[in-house]
Amino acid sequence: MSTPLTWGAPPPERADAARNRRLLLATARELLDEAGPGCLTMDRLAERSGLGKGTVFRRFGTRAGIFQALLDDSERTLQHRILSGPPPLGPGAPPVDRLIAYGCARIRFLAENQEVARAAVGGRGAGGRRPPLSEIHIRVLLRELELPGADLDLLPAQLASALEGPLLRQPLGDPGAGGPAATERFETGWRYLVERVCGDNGATAR
Amino acid sequence: MSTPLTWGAPPPERADAARNRRLLLATARELLDEAGPGCLTMDRLAERSGLGKGTVFRRFGTRAGIFQALLDDSERTLQHRILSGPPPLGPGAPPVDRLIAYGCARIRFLAENQEVARAAVGGRGAGGRRPPLSEIHIRVLLRELELPGADLDLLPAQLASALEGPLLRQPLGDPGAGGPAATERFETGWRYLVERVCGDNGATAR
Repeated sequence: MSTPLTWGAPPPERADAARNRRLLLATARELLDEAGPGCLTMDRLAERSGLGKGTVFRRFGTRAGIFQALLDDSERTLQHRILSGPPPLGPGAPPVDRLIAYGCARIRFLAENQEVARAAVGGRGAGGRRPPLSEIHIRVLLRELELPGADLDLLPAQLASALEGPLLRQPLGDPGAGGPAATERFETGWRYLVERVCGDNGATAR
Repeated sequence: MSTPLTWGAPPPERADAARNRRLLLATARELLDEAGPGCLTMDRLAERSGLGKGTVFRRFGTRAGIFQALLDDSERTLQHRILSGPPPLGPGAPPVDRLIAYGCARIRFLAENQEVARAAVGGRGAGGRRPPLSEIHIRVLLRELELPGADLDLLPAQLASALEGPLLRQPLGDPGAGGPAATERFETGWRYLVERVCGDNGATAR
């Protein structure tokens, strides 16, 4: 199986850079817990962490980049469940079942982290160093299917955007949008999309 | 046909607000043409236009909001072609053909406006007043198809994200990504996705 190991192991960094990263993420979580996402800015993060504004800027690029880093950090548990948890989220189930299970887990993860996820939009920047988790994992699973004519670099990006884009635009917890029922609706919609796209090629023993 | 008229006619605004909007957009284009997107900031826009920073902030919310407003403004020609141009982009073709034609036109539009489009990511903000053009138009066309089990509010948002997300993350004009061939690749990928999702229900006289 070709799941890339880079998920769990970020690119090597110098010891002082790693220390700064841990300090900045911990400080960002403190600020977030104390006063909410609106108060988490580059300036306050530099001041509270005692690091220079230049260091904060180089690490995150923009304010959205801080939230993206927090989201990436929270993602580790989900990554672990994908790599070595029980099927169908973990290995051992047919690829279409894993695609559906992944989308549902991702939707719940984004629902739990929605303030951070929304503030992270645009935070990876164009030409970010690593493609997002959703795109990597969806690509691995699609490659196991026989989809004649599919562009197996573009289709994962399309599906990852279809999975995450609508969630990040709509207020998931908005009572008018159905409250917690909204999560279930996104899960049903993801299953529908995967089944349409994978069609007969996705037929499993279910 | 239920195409909403709100595309062409933005919500009514007071005469002074409309004048400020026109002035701000014209000034933003000047700054963009002179010095590129990196130099278009809230501060410079306020200074050059001679309006208060508060006015600029209330109008756009964030720096990305300036770029979103520029993009919305450039979109008017595309809207006009959808509403009254020749088929299949305009009315008169089967809905699947119109979906494919719309996606291809949107890809070319974003490719032509890619610096602005990338800088606009996140600029509409969560809970923006109007859903984006892509989502509105895709919804209108999907409603004309018989798609059993489809969530006709969510599916348009999924497809709009699948259409635009990958373009805005990847450098379209990057020679390493194939230069102009990248646009064609996105068009082929969009056609593939629409045909999978619409399946037999999308059968046309082609």
